Amino acid sequence: MLTRQEALTRIGRLQLKLQGKGMDGALFIYPIDVYYFSGTRQNSTLWVPASGEPRLFVRKSYTRAKAESCIDDTRPFPSSKEFPGAFGEEVKKIGFTFDVAPVQQYQYYQKLLPGCEFVDISAVNREIRSVKSAWELEQIRHCGVELGQVFRAVPQFLKEGMREVDLAAEFEYRLRKAGGEGYVRMRAFNQELFQGLAVSSATAGDTGFFDGAVTGQGMSAASPHGASAALIPADAPILIDYTAVFNGYIIDMTRFFVIGKLDPELEHAFGVAVAIQDYLAQNLKPGAICEELFLKALEMATDAGLAEHFMGAPGENARFVGHGVGLELDEFPVLAQGFKVPLQVGQTLAIEPKFVFPGKGVIGIENTFAVTENGGEKLSELPDDIVYL
Amino acid sequence: MLTRQEALTRIGRLQLKLQGKGMDGALFIYPIDVYYFSGTRQNSTLWVPASGEPRLFVRKSYTRAKAESCIDDTRPFPSSKEFPGAFGEEVKKIGFTFDVAPVQQYQYYQKLLPGCEFVDISAVNREIRSVKSAWELEQIRHCGVELGQVFRAVPQFLKEGMREVDLAAEFEYRLRKAGGEGYVRMRAFNQELFQGLAVSSATAGDTGFFDGAVTGQGMSAASPHGASAALIPADAPILIDYTAVFNGYIIDMTRFFVIGKLDPELEHAFGVAVAIQDYLAQNLKPGAICEELFLKALEMATDAGLAEHFMGAPGENARFVGHGVGLELDEFPVLAQGFKVPLQVGQTLAIEPKFVFPGKGVIGIENTFAVTENGGEKLSELPDDIVYL
Repeated sequence: MLTRQEALTRIGRLQLKLQGKGMDGALFIYPIDVYYFSGTRQNSTLWVPASGEPRLFVRKSYTRAKAESCIDDTRPFPSSKEFPGAFGEEVKKIGFTFDVAPVQQYQYYQKLLPGCEFVDISAVNREIRSVKSAWELEQIRHCGVELGQVFRAVPQFLKEGMREVDLAAEFEYRLRKAGGEGYVRMRAFNQELFQGLAVSSATAGDTGFFDGAVTGQGMSAASPHGASAALIPADAPILIDYTAVFNGYIIDMTRFFVIGKLDPELEHAFGVAVAIQDYLAQNLKPGAICEELFLKALEMATDAGLAEHFMGAPGENARFVGHGVGLELDEFPVLAQGFKVPLQVGQTLAIEPKFVFPGKGVIGIENTFAVTENGGEKLSELPDDIVYL
Repeated sequence: MLTRQEALTRIGRLQLKLQGKGMDGALFIYPIDVYYFSGTRQNSTLWVPASGEPRLFVRKSYTRAKAESCIDDTRPFPSSKEFPGAFGEEVKKIGFTFDVAPVQQYQYYQKLLPGCEFVDISAVNREIRSVKSAWELEQIRHCGVELGQVFRAVPQFLKEGMREVDLAAEFEYRLRKAGGEGYVRMRAFNQELFQGLAVSSATAGDTGFFDGAVTGQGMSAASPHGASAALIPADAPILIDYTAVFNGYIIDMTRFFVIGKLDPELEHAFGVAVAIQDYLAQNLKPGAICEELFLKALEMATDAGLAEHFMGAPGENARFVGHGVGLELDEFPVLAQGFKVPLQVGQTLAIEPKFVFPGKGVIGIENTFAVTENGGEKLSELPDDIVYL
C-alpha cells in the first residue's frame, strides 16, 4: 500500500509545478493518476490545489476509497450544485489531463466549474510520474523477481510444434499463479496490450498497430497483437516479450528461445543487441540526453551493418530503443528521436534493442533499468543469453 | 473476418442516421469503432460521409490494414496540409465520439479541419452497434461454446483452500488454450476488466469501483477487482463471472459452485434469480421497454423479500439487471432505471440477477441472450444450476 508520507511527497512535487505555471490547482479524473497521488483506484476525482490540502471526491466505492486513500479529506462526490464550493476557495485556472480525459468528461467538468480555464498538464503529470521513489523501485524489482521465475520455467513447457497461443497460455498461467494482476495499463490513445507477446512465426517481422518493434499476428483482426495460432518451429528465434504487474507496477522484459540452431546472421545480431543494451545501461545517468542515447544505439547498429533491421522491418523501423515504465507501460522518458530531455535519477526505462529480419524472425533483448548516478541499475536478475533447447 | 457486404450494411445504417441529423459525415478514431465499420483495428481514422464512399486513413500498419479493411478507399494517413482535401468535398458538420475521444485528439482533429463543427454522436454509434447481425450472433455463440466448456471443467480444478487467484489462473489458462483473445474492451470511462471474477470470500459483497453487483477485492488497491489471495472455503457460494473473447466479440456468463452445502437463504435467492432471468428472457422481445424490465425484476425480488439484496449489498444496490454486450462489455441497451427505450431484434444482453448477502456471499445467474420476436435466445447452452462439489 502507498504510504501517506509518499503520497504527500508526490503531491508536493506536483504543487511546485502548479505554482511555477501559475495554476490554481489540478483536477485528476483518470484512475491511474488518481491512484498515483492518492493510493486508491476507486472511481474518484482528485483535486490538488497549488497549495494546501488535496481533496478526493469519491463516486464508488466510498467505503473502499476511504480505507485506502492517503488523502485526509476523502469525501463522497458532491452534487452539481455543491461542486464548485467543494474547492473551498476561488479557482480560475485548472490543470487537466487532456491526453486521457474524454471530451464528454471535459465538458462535464467545464459545466461544473463555470468560468474556469482548463489547461493541459499531461506532460507535467507524466514527467512527475517518470521519477520513481525507492518504494516504487522496490515494486518493480518484485515484478522482476516474479517475471524472471516464469522465464526460467520456459524450458519446462516450450515444445516444437505447439501453437504460439499455447506458449502464451503456459506463460500467463504461471504469472497469474504468482499473483500477477494482469491489467497492463497504456496511456497512449489507440494502444493496448494483453500481457505480452509470444511470437515465433515467420510473420514475427510484420508490422501492426502497436508502437513497438514487434506486434505479432494475434488471434484475429480484432485483437491483432501477440500470440497467434501459428505453430512454433525448430531452428528459429522464439520471442517472449512479457510484462508482470504487481501492486499496479509493471516490469517489461524480453528473452529469446531457440529449439535447435539459430541462423548465424541472427546470432550475430543478438550480440549487437546486447552490446547496445549494455552501452545504454552504462549511460543511464542523470543528464544524459534521451535522443542522443537513441542515436548512439542506431550508430552502433549501423556500424554492425544492421541499421535497416533495427527496431523494425526494413523501411518500417521504429525511431526509439527504450521507454519509461511504471504504472503504465508507456511512461516517460522515451529514448527516441526528438526526445531532447535529460534523464533524471529514479526514472525507469525498458531498454529493448531488437532486430527484425522479415521471413527469418526477430532477435534482441529487453530489460528494465533504473537511472542512477552510476548508470542503469537492472531491476531483474535473469541472464540475457538466448536459451537453446 | 468481417465481410465487405456486412461492412457496407453497417455503414449504410450509419449514413441514414447521419442524414437524419443533417450531418456531413462522421469521423471515427476509436479502434473498436474503426474495427466495427471497417474490419481492421489497425491505428486508423475512418471517415464516413453522410452519403458516398467511406475512407480509411491508416497510420500503422498500412500493409495490415490494407489486407483486412473492407473499405475500398484505404490509404496512408495524409499530411496535415492534405488532410482537409482528403475528404473530397466540403464538410461543415462532423459526427465524433465524445465518449471515448480524448481532448488532445479532439483538438488535433479540430485543427486539421478548421471551420468544422464537431457534434457528439456517441449515442447514435452505440445504438447502431447494439443491433447485431446474424454473423455477429454467430461470433457470440462461438464464445458461448468455448466459455461453456471451461465452466464444465471447473469441478476438475476447484478445490477447498485454494486461493481465488489460483482458481482464476486455472480458468483463464483454459480460456487462453481455447484461443481466447483476453482483451475485454469497456467503453465507459473509469471502467476496466481483466477477463472476469472468481470470488468466494466473505468480502464478495463489498462494493468497488466496478459498475456491477460484484467487484471482488482483487490483488491490490491498484487492481481492486476480481480474484484476491483469499482462500476458497467450503459451504459458501463461489462466484465465477467470466467473459470469453473471440474475433473481438464478448460473451458474459456467471455460474456458482459450492463445495459442500449452501445456506438455505442463498439457495432460496438462487431460485428467485433464475426465475427473474427466465421472466426477462421470455420478454426480450422488440418493443419491450428496458426500464420496465428492470422494474419488473426488482418487483420480483421485492415479492420474494429480497429487494435489499438485489444487485448489491443493502444500501448500495445497482439500479440495473442487464447490459448490452458485443465488441465491448458495456454496450447498449441497459436494463436499468431511466433507460426508457424499446428493445430491438438482434440486440444482445447479459442478464444477471444477483443477490448480495454481506458476510455470506453472492448468489445469482448470468447468461447472454439475443432479442428475437419470440423472446430471448440464450447464446450458450450451459445449465444454470449451482454446481455442488
